Amino acid sequence: MPKIVDHNLRKKQIAEASWRVILEQGMEGATVRNIAKEAGLSLGALRHYFSTQDELLEFAMKLVIERATERIEKITVTELPPKEMILQILMQLVPVTPETMAEMEVWFTFISYARHKRVTIDFPHDGIYQGMTKIIRAMDGLKLLRKDLNIDLEIERIYALVDGIALHALMEKERLNYERIYELFVYHLNSIWVEEKKL
Amino acid sequence: MPKIVDHNLRKKQIAEASWRVILEQGMEGATVRNIAKEAGLSLGALRHYFSTQDELLEFAMKLVIERATERIEKITVTELPPKEMILQILMQLVPVTPETMAEMEVWFTFISYARHKRVTIDFPHDGIYQGMTKIIRAMDGLKLLRKDLNIDLEIERIYALVDGIALHALMEKERLNYERIYELFVYHLNSIWVEEKKL
Repeated sequence: MPKIVDHNLRKKQIAEASWRVILEQGMEGATVRNIAKEAGLSLGALRHYFSTQDELLEFAMKLVIERATERIEKITVTELPPKEMILQILMQLVPVTPETMAEMEVWFTFISYARHKRVTIDFPHDGIYQGMTKIIRAMDGLKLLRKDLNIDLEIERIYALVDGIALHALMEKERLNYERIYELFVYHLNSIWVEEKKL
Repeated sequence: MPKIVDHNLRKKQIAEASWRVILEQGMEGATVRNIAKEAGLSLGALRHYFSTQDELLEFAMKLVIERATERIEKITVTELPPKEMILQILMQLVPVTPETMAEMEVWFTFISYARHKRVTIDFPHDGIYQGMTKIIRAMDGLKLLRKDLNIDLEIERIYALVDGIALHALMEKERLNYERIYELFVYHLNSIWVEEKKL
């Protein structure tokens, strides 16, 4: 079914064009017209794939999540020891590469836009809270966490930490580089990890 | 000099009108025209106080910082014990009251807008990193922190925690209410505080 494959591929290409427009011009510039131009399509051709701007933006945002999820799934099937695996997963959620930097910037721009929009966009949740829940519970299940911790609050804490770092790294690229963020995650994990397992 | 007092008061009223417009319509709606209307002024009268939109927005953002700083300064002159004082300060930096909720929303909307604007706004730094540096260093100076901590990373960690919580509280008002956030801050402080001083 080559036609369906082409259809999905083309939708992704259009979504990526919309990311580039958002990165360049902000949400104000993310009109169907500008996105069609960036994708090298006529307005009519674009409408064949997305009938409204909201439909396109929703797809573009879901693609951000899909990409991050794919990267994380690749890490979870490796043979890395648990802590190293968790560190690699956390590093996928902060803007430290051109790819994650673009994803994060598009995401924050979109969140801010969607909050003020009167028309409701089916706003995809980024799933980071659920992801952090899984990670902390897995660590707990493997008896890797100190016994005096409050699991529920540890989930909330690492969730806030990840998004706080993501926000700061976006605004202060120089100070919060890869090494600094990695160091901070190691430090945080060491503070909740059982003593003998520290890195 | 009643005229000067009036002038500053009027500038603040205009800035507050611009917050209301931003909260209602997002940055797209924050035109000089809409702000003048919200403030009950003619365009000409508004231009008497702010000659450009950027000048007005810059003032409006600085007022957000000024307000939070004033609240925090009031706390620092109380007789509260150190940990209770720190908790009260941290609670000023997260959106848990209608006032801090509005401040934070205006702030995030503005950050996102300013990032994509080609004209440079003299972007006021929110000073939270500096504030967290002061707090952690003061705790260290008072020998309230555990001895095995990395002070530099503790500053980075609490800074990320505060802004991560602020972001989440803005998006998930129900889940991250006052009690939940207070509990999380107590939990975090207890994890770095010397044992015998825990709340």
